Amino acid sequence: MSRVSPLVDSLIEAFQCLPGVGPKSAQRMTLHLLERNKNAGLVLAETLSLALENVDKCSSCRIFTETELCQICTNEKRNKSQICVVESVSDVFAIEQSNEFNGTYFILHGHLSPIDDIGPEELGLEKLFLRAKSQDTSEIILATNSTLEGETTSHFIYDNIKDIESLKVTKLARGVPLGGELEYVDRGTIMHAFSGRQTLKPTEL
Amino acid sequence: MSRVSPLVDSLIEAFQCLPGVGPKSAQRMTLHLLERNKNAGLVLAETLSLALENVDKCSSCRIFTETELCQICTNEKRNKSQICVVESVSDVFAIEQSNEFNGTYFILHGHLSPIDDIGPEELGLEKLFLRAKSQDTSEIILATNSTLEGETTSHFIYDNIKDIESLKVTKLARGVPLGGELEYVDRGTIMHAFSGRQTLKPTEL
Repeated sequence: MSRVSPLVDSLIEAFQCLPGVGPKSAQRMTLHLLERNKNAGLVLAETLSLALENVDKCSSCRIFTETELCQICTNEKRNKSQICVVESVSDVFAIEQSNEFNGTYFILHGHLSPIDDIGPEELGLEKLFLRAKSQDTSEIILATNSTLEGETTSHFIYDNIKDIESLKVTKLARGVPLGGELEYVDRGTIMHAFSGRQTLKPTEL
Repeated sequence: MSRVSPLVDSLIEAFQCLPGVGPKSAQRMTLHLLERNKNAGLVLAETLSLALENVDKCSSCRIFTETELCQICTNEKRNKSQICVVESVSDVFAIEQSNEFNGTYFILHGHLSPIDDIGPEELGLEKLFLRAKSQDTSEIILATNSTLEGETTSHFIYDNIKDIESLKVTKLARGVPLGGELEYVDRGTIMHAFSGRQTLKPTEL
């Protein structure tokens, strides 16, 4: 596409590194910032370079943070004896939003995938196993995605920590999602929902 | 939403200045860059601040450029006697893509809108009228959007330049769009298509 200014062209090009942004959206973002929102754009540029230069993985849970330990690992109100193992940081955001979990995390940043050369080392499993062996840890909650790769990764982790004394290893319940209509729920989920069915107590339901 | 690092939070916040980007997309962009694409992110940050600091409006056609005159206005192969008046820079990109027009542009960056305090001055019309009066200009093509505001703006411009001697003022043809099925074309467009119908020559169709 013939355009009018090398700098504007490079900006349209640069925006396309963002997920879900193609040439049209990149053009719209560029013109929007130039036309209406220069200040917000400058703030974005500064925050972006600051974050990319300073943010790294928390040395305990591998979440993104600009400090040695993240705000969850240093929060005294959180239960350090529980470790929830997830595949990505966005899973942490989703769990935090539910306000259900008050323990700590361990982020794998992926799942085992021999074909992509992603083994235990890339997922930082050595560090996880060390934390699992520690006296301070009482429970590991395996919360990888309910996909083939996620389940495989959970299995591998379970095999490596199942013999640790007095350590409880759990995984998230599988079942019918809230608001889910049985008619449209897949066979596998229904199988899990049946095998994991729970006895009602008079105070429930 | 409780999050884990002030800097990551500010980046998620900052991304939301982009059009069409809400909290979820901003989170996805942030994690994508931190996890997989730090270098591209740094390039984006640098290009963004460079562009916002250096890009301004071309002193002749008001398109965005980092130089005094843009690449279209300084291109010797373009026909300087034709000026196509459009509402926004994205209109220029669309017209350039069609490869149909080889003249120059004038970008209004909006349309007349008394309710938003946008008058002739904000659209730089003084500059357009000066160019229109110049001996070098033979044709003004009014290519504002086919909306009430766009048509009003074109009318206003037409009223101000219609008396200039030997200046041709034209507007884009209205009609059925390419690939458009008559059944789904609106009444107004059909009216324009009829009143603007053209006599076929044996070599055409």
